[in-house]
Amino acid sequence: MNVNSQRLISRIKAFGTIGLDDKERLARIAFSDADKQGRDQLIAWMKEANLDIEIDRIGNIHGIWQPASVIHGKPIMMGSHIDTVLNAGIYDGNYGVLAGLEVILTLQESGFIPVRPVVISAFSNEEGARYSPDMMGSLVYAGGLEVDKALETIGVDGSVLGCELDRIGYSGANEPGFLQPKAYIELHIEQGPVLDKLDIPIGVVEDLQGISWQRITIEGTANHAGTTPMSMRADAGMASAQVIVSLRDNILAKSDKMVTTIGAMQFEPNIINVIPSKAQFTVDLRSPVEDDLKDAENSLIKCLNTVAESEGVKVSIERMARFEPVIFDNKLVGIIEEVTKCRGLSSKRMTSGAGHDAQMMARICPSAMIFVPSKDGISHNPKEYTEDEALVAGANILLDTVSSLAI
Amino acid sequence: MNVNSQRLISRIKAFGTIGLDDKERLARIAFSDADKQGRDQLIAWMKEANLDIEIDRIGNIHGIWQPASVIHGKPIMMGSHIDTVLNAGIYDGNYGVLAGLEVILTLQESGFIPVRPVVISAFSNEEGARYSPDMMGSLVYAGGLEVDKALETIGVDGSVLGCELDRIGYSGANEPGFLQPKAYIELHIEQGPVLDKLDIPIGVVEDLQGISWQRITIEGTANHAGTTPMSMRADAGMASAQVIVSLRDNILAKSDKMVTTIGAMQFEPNIINVIPSKAQFTVDLRSPVEDDLKDAENSLIKCLNTVAESEGVKVSIERMARFEPVIFDNKLVGIIEEVTKCRGLSSKRMTSGAGHDAQMMARICPSAMIFVPSKDGISHNPKEYTEDEALVAGANILLDTVSSLAI
Repeated sequence: MNVNSQRLISRIKAFGTIGLDDKERLARIAFSDADKQGRDQLIAWMKEANLDIEIDRIGNIHGIWQPASVIHGKPIMMGSHIDTVLNAGIYDGNYGVLAGLEVILTLQESGFIPVRPVVISAFSNEEGARYSPDMMGSLVYAGGLEVDKALETIGVDGSVLGCELDRIGYSGANEPGFLQPKAYIELHIEQGPVLDKLDIPIGVVEDLQGISWQRITIEGTANHAGTTPMSMRADAGMASAQVIVSLRDNILAKSDKMVTTIGAMQFEPNIINVIPSKAQFTVDLRSPVEDDLKDAENSLIKCLNTVAESEGVKVSIERMARFEPVIFDNKLVGIIEEVTKCRGLSSKRMTSGAGHDAQMMARICPSAMIFVPSKDGISHNPKEYTEDEALVAGANILLDTVSSLAI
Repeated sequence: MNVNSQRLISRIKAFGTIGLDDKERLARIAFSDADKQGRDQLIAWMKEANLDIEIDRIGNIHGIWQPASVIHGKPIMMGSHIDTVLNAGIYDGNYGVLAGLEVILTLQESGFIPVRPVVISAFSNEEGARYSPDMMGSLVYAGGLEVDKALETIGVDGSVLGCELDRIGYSGANEPGFLQPKAYIELHIEQGPVLDKLDIPIGVVEDLQGISWQRITIEGTANHAGTTPMSMRADAGMASAQVIVSLRDNILAKSDKMVTTIGAMQFEPNIINVIPSKAQFTVDLRSPVEDDLKDAENSLIKCLNTVAESEGVKVSIERMARFEPVIFDNKLVGIIEEVTKCRGLSSKRMTSGAGHDAQMMARICPSAMIFVPSKDGISHNPKEYTEDEALVAGANILLDTVSSLAI
């Protein structure tokens, strides 16, 4: 049994043209008109496959294949998302949804007889580009955030999530969590360089990094850059550089599985000849080991206190997001590894460095993920690229995994 | 002989209300309407003192007192500036100009008979807040920048300097440099914490720090903050933090007279979960010793090259401004020190950490500066403050210095 590679690839490419903005950038931002266009297309294709379409109250779309052969209630669920960041690539999320639909079509066309429903789900607002937090649709689905609260979320553009969801017509009647899966499998591009660099076609994702997002504010005193001796300064900028270097040294010394990123940085007043009165930066810490993550957070606090003392600055920490590492289901991981081997493909067990809907679904059912390589690890960028052959290989591994679970 | 302290202080305070913006911030930005209002007031007061008013082609205003007693052509010139930064204090620059005018009034009222003209000059665009470089009026006056080139300068708001100068009616006929002073003396607030901290009323400025302004650009690769192992990154942000910490360590080890400031910093794309593809920051280096300044610049280059190698990033340096240290005239410095002693006041020889018009004038005539304390060293800020008594003391030292030179 093999997926129809031509149909899969042409759909991925067609889908990638939906929601281009006036600058030709792909921008299917959650609950925008562009998102609605993507949803409409997905549903049209789901209807062609004769799936039952159910939408829940947070707008997650579920296409359910439930032929007469089904004797067990709990479905095998595949899923991912179709919202994108601004100026996105065409694979992130969309690949998993369209490959899942392709898997169902292939099963149908092959005369496969499932004993459980097979579902393909597209979760709302995975990217969090407009409404925080990200992975919201699956978080709500898994019971981690109340749907009524989520609907009240105010977007970066001042819009109210629930109103926008109503506006695009995707506010469904089902309570999130109404389908309790037997297992959840998500196929996704790696969005990192490891598989590409090692030339391995399939990543078997056994865990997912815990994430700690913090915003650090350091407050010093603005003063003239020439007239203030170094010893009389409270330089928020210098203090921030010291903290960042020390944080990185700690991480590098601790574990090669940990990563830290200072993605955003802002000085005030941000003028060449004025000592910064304020430096604000974000710290993104990730580790598949919760204890390592906690250690890193604690050593950051220590380092901030040391710098506050030595530099005469005030420091504060704002926690922005925190997710513990997720350990995926060992049995599912083994099945994915096994079917990959049966196809004669090499695989590598790995940690997901990105957040995915699977980490939320892991709260309510056995879950795992399949990765395919991302060229140069580039993602969230129009240059995001995975070879057609690799996309087809990943879809076939998803097919084999689901067929072995649904029988 | 003493200045009229009531007149001096009330004029400084009145002048500080000219050019408030709609948020009540003092903003006499060069060649703006607010600058014009300040210029008009200054000229009105100069006219009350029966000074000959000459304006040169870069808009510098010169009030010339040239009574019949004058037998030598070269004037004693006092000067500073009346333009301000945005949200400025009321003393920076204005104090020197208004005190200079007060000195002339006092000399006139005391029946002082000068053998040379006595001039008070207000130089254009000292702050450089709108048009680069700063200290432009005195730089042009001293022949360091061609006036026609200066007039073509494009401002941060896109305006052309010469057009704005015409618009406010301050484009004069005199060639800059038309008056060749016998000596130039500038009275200024310290804009630093040293005199205030040491409780010394008069700073005798014997030299002025050389300034090196550079903009550093570090280019790496934007990548996902979770999925890219630390070893596979080209993180422009991390590289910038390393350079900054290393630069500061070098400066601290070298000399306690050197200072360095990273005033402006910008990451791209500046998003919490994206490894910065670009970090751009400014380096402000100052030293009264040219060799130390050169050493610091060279060690910055070395450090950038090391980081480029170790982090896999591209580095580039853009020189924004460079002035060698200025040694003021030793004889003038001695005179200021002497008249201060005669008044029974303590003084301290010091280095100016800020740039001043005096550094430009030192190119064409013996020059020196007098500092008075700045409360907590705060400047370029509405909190900028010098006690009235200290302002009067400084003006009297200027008076004594000029009267000893003009006789």
